Amino acid sequence: MSSIWGDNIKISVFGESHGLAVGVVIDGLPPGIPLDTRKIDFEMKRRRPGQNIYTTQRTETDKVEIVSGFFNGFTTGTPLCGIIKNNDKRSTDYEDIKNIMRPGHADYTGFVRYNGFGDYRGGGHFSGRLTAPIVFAGAIANQYLEQKGIVIGTHLLQIGNIQDESIDSVNVTTKQLQLFRSMSFPVVNEQVQDKMKEEINAARMECDSVGGILETSIINLPAGIGAPIFDSVESRLSAFVFSIPGVKGIEFGTGFKLSSMRGSDANDEFYISKDKAGCSTVNLNCSDTYNREISKNTPENNIPRTRTNHSGGINGGITNGMPVLFRTCIKPTSTISKPQHTINIDTMQETEHIFKGRHDPCIAVRAVPVIDAAAALVVMDLLLEKEV
Amino acid sequence: MSSIWGDNIKISVFGESHGLAVGVVIDGLPPGIPLDTRKIDFEMKRRRPGQNIYTTQRTETDKVEIVSGFFNGFTTGTPLCGIIKNNDKRSTDYEDIKNIMRPGHADYTGFVRYNGFGDYRGGGHFSGRLTAPIVFAGAIANQYLEQKGIVIGTHLLQIGNIQDESIDSVNVTTKQLQLFRSMSFPVVNEQVQDKMKEEINAARMECDSVGGILETSIINLPAGIGAPIFDSVESRLSAFVFSIPGVKGIEFGTGFKLSSMRGSDANDEFYISKDKAGCSTVNLNCSDTYNREISKNTPENNIPRTRTNHSGGINGGITNGMPVLFRTCIKPTSTISKPQHTINIDTMQETEHIFKGRHDPCIAVRAVPVIDAAAALVVMDLLLEKEV
Amino acid sequence: MSSIWGDNIKISVFGESHGLAVGVVIDGLPPGIPLDTRKIDFEMKRRRPGQNIYTTQRTETDKVEIVSGFFNGFTTGTPLCGIIKNNDKRSTDYEDIKNIMRPGHADYTGFVRYNGFGDYRGGGHFSGRLTAPIVFAGAIANQYLEQKGIVIGTHLLQIGNIQDESIDSVNVTTKQLQLFRSMSFPVVNEQVQDKMKEEINAARMECDSVGGILETSIINLPAGIGAPIFDSVESRLSAFVFSIPGVKGIEFGTGFKLSSMRGSDANDEFYISKDKAGCSTVNLNCSDTYNREISKNTPENNIPRTRTNHSGGINGGITNGMPVLFRTCIKPTSTISKPQHTINIDTMQETEHIFKGRHDPCIAVRAVPVIDAAAALVVMDLLLEKEV
Amino acid sequence: MSSIWGDNIKISVFGESHGLAVGVVIDGLPPGIPLDTRKIDFEMKRRRPGQNIYTTQRTETDKVEIVSGFFNGFTTGTPLCGIIKNNDKRSTDYEDIKNIMRPGHADYTGFVRYNGFGDYRGGGHFSGRLTAPIVFAGAIANQYLEQKGIVIGTHLLQIGNIQDESIDSVNVTTKQLQLFRSMSFPVVNEQVQDKMKEEINAARMECDSVGGILETSIINLPAGIGAPIFDSVESRLSAFVFSIPGVKGIEFGTGFKLSSMRGSDANDEFYISKDKAGCSTVNLNCSDTYNREISKNTPENNIPRTRTNHSGGINGGITNGMPVLFRTCIKPTSTISKPQHTINIDTMQETEHIFKGRHDPCIAVRAVPVIDAAAALVVMDLLLEKEV
Repeated sequence: MSSIWGDNIKISVFGESHGLAVGVVIDGLPPGIPLDTRKIDFEMKRRRPGQNIYTTQRTETDKVEIVSGFFNGFTTGTPLCGIIKNNDKRSTDYEDIKNIMRPGHADYTGFVRYNGFGDYRGGGHFSGRLTAPIVFAGAIANQYLEQKGIVIGTHLLQIGNIQDESIDSVNVTTKQLQLFRSMSFPVVNEQVQDKMKEEINAARMECDSVGGILETSIINLPAGIGAPIFDSVESRLSAFVFSIPGVKGIEFGTGFKLSSMRGSDANDEFYISKDKAGCSTVNLNCSDTYNREISKNTPENNIPRTRTNHSGGINGGITNGMPVLFRTCIKPTSTISKPQHTINIDTMQETEHIFKGRHDPCIAVRAVPVIDAAAALVVMDLLLEKEV
Repeated sequence: MSSIWGDNIKISVFGESHGLAVGVVIDGLPPGIPLDTRKIDFEMKRRRPGQNIYTTQRTETDKVEIVSGFFNGFTTGTPLCGIIKNNDKRSTDYEDIKNIMRPGHADYTGFVRYNGFGDYRGGGHFSGRLTAPIVFAGAIANQYLEQKGIVIGTHLLQIGNIQDESIDSVNVTTKQLQLFRSMSFPVVNEQVQDKMKEEINAARMECDSVGGILETSIINLPAGIGAPIFDSVESRLSAFVFSIPGVKGIEFGTGFKLSSMRGSDANDEFYISKDKAGCSTVNLNCSDTYNREISKNTPENNIPRTRTNHSGGINGGITNGMPVLFRTCIKPTSTISKPQHTINIDTMQETEHIFKGRHDPCIAVRAVPVIDAAAALVVMDLLLEKEV
Repeated sequence: MSSIWGDNIKISVFGESHGLAVGVVIDGLPPGIPLDTRKIDFEMKRRRPGQNIYTTQRTETDKVEIVSGFFNGFTTGTPLCGIIKNNDKRSTDYEDIKNIMRPGHADYTGFVRYNGFGDYRGGGHFSGRLTAPIVFAGAIANQYLEQKGIVIGTHLLQIGNIQDESIDSVNVTTKQLQLFRSMSFPVVNEQVQDKMKEEINAARMECDSVGGILETSIINLPAGIGAPIFDSVESRLSAFVFSIPGVKGIEFGTGFKLSSMRGSDANDEFYISKDKAGCSTVNLNCSDTYNREISKNTPENNIPRTRTNHSGGINGGITNGMPVLFRTCIKPTSTISKPQHTINIDTMQETEHIFKGRHDPCIAVRAVPVIDAAAALVVMDLLLEKEV
Repeated sequence: MSSIWGDNIKISVFGESHGLAVGVVIDGLPPGIPLDTRKIDFEMKRRRPGQNIYTTQRTETDKVEIVSGFFNGFTTGTPLCGIIKNNDKRSTDYEDIKNIMRPGHADYTGFVRYNGFGDYRGGGHFSGRLTAPIVFAGAIANQYLEQKGIVIGTHLLQIGNIQDESIDSVNVTTKQLQLFRSMSFPVVNEQVQDKMKEEINAARMECDSVGGILETSIINLPAGIGAPIFDSVESRLSAFVFSIPGVKGIEFGTGFKLSSMRGSDANDEFYISKDKAGCSTVNLNCSDTYNREISKNTPENNIPRTRTNHSGGINGGITNGMPVLFRTCIKPTSTISKPQHTINIDTMQETEHIFKGRHDPCIAVRAVPVIDAAAALVVMDLLLEKEV
């Protein structure tokens, strides 16, 4: 069931790029979350196309109509459905090329999967446009997380060959992450911004595209979230992140570099922190009935922390109270306007083709708010894990 | 629900490292799969500890007792339960250190998650020993896949600083993958084997551990497996792979290197293959009722393939018939016998500790059959996706 | 997660009685089902309110807008979303009485469940109006089933104290069931129709309501559908049927009367039928690979049947090829215009109240197409159970 | 997936009647539930066969071996697996008759469903023996519920033509329900006990069997449990109850009799109770963050209750704080020793057969603890629903 996700909240995503609308039903939201629609609009705007030359020129207002589950300013607790109309459709762009399988794209695999019945216009249900309802759902999750002090932010660690600095994995701050959310090119070192834009523009001018790496931080998560084996935080985050078009790799904490390290370097040693910045031992899993005196020696300002954060805040699949950190690799946009060799699925002949139509020269940029939304939804789902 | 996984088959893993047994219930297996128990034993032996100096010295026969779901040599179609006794337990090893939180391990996070009630002996339910029932379940899935010609194999691409060659992503062969399964140190270039062993032994002699990278190939998968958005092949594989202790990163195809590539290089161009080696267009998703004449132009020896395989055989979350390729990063074993700083969770004091007990100096080696099992289970689950 | 249902297809229902719209997302539909929108309209019209004096006077066209998943006359295989606008809303009817808990209704329990944040207007998400998207989803499932010859139909076995005849549990025909679907008061013995209408009208004139029993038949289901234990056909049907407002009982085959029978009477004896009317041994669960010669002695006109049908076509949770039969008890509509004692949840005072607003004097009548839809969705979900 | 059940706890049942063992894995149990194994043994004994002439003469000790998830007297929070050996197996009883399809039993449907690969001995996975692990799981759930004051009990409302009195649906007491649990023939009016035993014995002497009706009460459930539409308490309870072999009907509260009632009689009028016996307004769904002052007017001794209980404690799918009441119809045991006509599935010939082997002359009696276990598991699952 490819378009439903979640355990404690469930989102059901629907729509095609050139159909009437895209949208999402969110089931399992707690009742009584006050929703600020301006914050939703803000997140939608972060993802919206057509805002500058570094993104596709399709223009959509991406205004969400909330159809249900929202009453008198609060969530009702029953399913919340949001719908986003498709306005700027040029479906004729696709009629001529419906049998030409774009290399790197889902044209061929979608054709086989859906036996030729899929809506081929603009990628149909495979379109990056389906990330709009995900961003909407994430914007709601984010307002839930804000109330708990949990903050998520992502920056462009790499675009093509241009690299930003990595975040400080131990001391990443709310301020830094909020700054990322306000930037259209979020980076740690602002001096690389122009170089990144040049990198994208260079690809664009050559009718080509370029990839990138995003680095995401989640802070103020309590220790004890997630579970061993199949509900590890890494499993849950990676499963969602690989649902975003173009993602081809993910790593947590020090990631692939851990392969060449020794355990004595990679292990994050614990100590007792005397301040409570950036972490918490609030145990969401304590039962009223059976609660042992776990916290007797744990005054609020006396908290286990680690001096390094190679694990990305996750041990054994469960948060340890340190920042959760992961990096996502985004491949270059598949649809490019350079001539490419491919096949015609109807004639089963090889052909060379130039794909016109509008596309992002670097989807990594617009993936930033989508990754933030994914992280918010996963974290909310894990936090709502039943209390026992 | 951390220990149940799957959509079309479901596995429910149970047990603790030092309890009576570990095991698994597999629900949803098709009836009538002939099971060769020698093949199960073979897979269990690949993972078994105590076979050489590069692994933990705990000795377990890891013989599986099949309790249900297997009758007269075939699966019955009702739940199959396999149980593996724990024999070589030295629980007293752990009594003294139950309050000492091993850095990098799940001791602290498990303590918080389970409110101090978890079985702390040998890592309890967090132990790598829980991969034994996964290997058992994978051995059954693998016999199902064998009948369809699907082959999975993994080699050690990197141990510490020693690197093997990458597999040929377009032309990986059944023979190569079967060879990997027969090797205790599977590599492409056998000349690196000794260097890898030295790297592990060096860490072991220093009471330390070392990480690694595994590269896995799945061949002969038909095109059209998986789904857009939440059931992408990458989502499903990554979620399972991150359930294996020590995994900290995964990438598909060319992976993180795609970030610095252009679309024109990264896109895999299609062509029509005249032979059928290594791929298939058998459409598992054709309905009898509604089947369109998809294959009219697709004789068996006239198959879409790609000349490169940067996508790792997956476009838009769905297989394209090329080899599925992914690389997994395994961190160095957390438990080491070097002195480390940490905390006592009972006294909430900092302390320095040397962890004794038996452990693998490089879990990447024993992770090989576990990754193979994970891949087999995911692929079987995706193949069993309802026909439509 | 109260508003998502299904295993192989999943439906996600949303909306409130007096919000913008109600609707449903259907995920997992096979691609390539040709949909006749007139058949959808026909089913919607069966449920639509305001068509005669025996139903509520709220008038809604209940035209469904299909937003996604439907392209060029066929299902695409990706999520199909249908939206039904709410037009005839009189929300002010409810403002005054929002704190008055209607006896028998979900006002109080919904208030507690959703902590007072629910949309109280017209029952909100608890409204019978939420059966409109279920009927829409069922209309699609029904077109899928039609292609396989499976027919579902329901008649009013009882309204108040007026009883219709029971269907012939062994020889129920397609013609009879199709006749039921075309009748606004479906009965076997048409002479009871007027008496039933009088029974309803009598209740209506006294500002009261009345209950009923529906009898549903599903024919031409192959043997072998369903599963032991938790996926029994009875479990799956009852779970959905109890999701329909007002249902308080369900029984299969001879039902509660089996309690006073002997096994020798209750057991349905098997024989070999020489004709193939009304049943089939088509085994949906045969694997291509492992298929045993199950059917060697089963020519199409040589089929196991039973001479009686006390089991309602289900043995051990699995269909046996005979008609599946069940009866559903619907309580009298809760909302009535007679004075009733109840409480004000705000003041926590007792009060007497007359509830105005529009309601059905007998919801059993409009429940007929809803039960048909429920049965169609359950049967489709069971049929789509993976083939192996 | 027929043998896995649950949302917040999940149970995975495995085993066959004449295999090595039957058992269950329970995932999602809260950590820290103190388990009294004597209470488990007590529940197992209630279901155990061979205790008197009214049940099958198969003798099993039904001692459960807890393999995992239980440590130092408490649940660990990780999966708890319990295994029950099959000792008194007479598999040869079944070899001769494996092709003779018992009328009313799952022999034929199971043969079709599993393509002839099922374990036919003693009903295999369809056997009533599979209720043993359900009773075990229910015994654990029951200890969880006891701590919250929730009590469940069932009596034999009818055996054949002998009827017990119905429970007082408004004032059922803990004492009464605990008494039921201690009786091997639980009834309200003890004078019907002997008549019921005679009814069973009469059937037994005639090589026949007889059915019955069970009436179950659940008291002290807080208001607000369950959900509209698909997670109605009726949906959840009925789905589980129909998983128990032999169940053919279920009704809640006044049940089928509601069909002939008027709304003014069927509606349960609310009042404000000044004592707190038998109910509670504890709101499990209050969020810490968003909690409105719902209880300001709700002192503990000032509670909404209803004067009648036709709804069986459930309005709109959600508990209202009154006793939850349901009745279950159990058909007569299918396996009887009278000659019956049936078919041989191998030869596809009709035949007459006398089935020997051991069976219960009235499974309704031994179904009592199974229904109690089912109710306990459903209630626990609903209570663990995430707090919001």
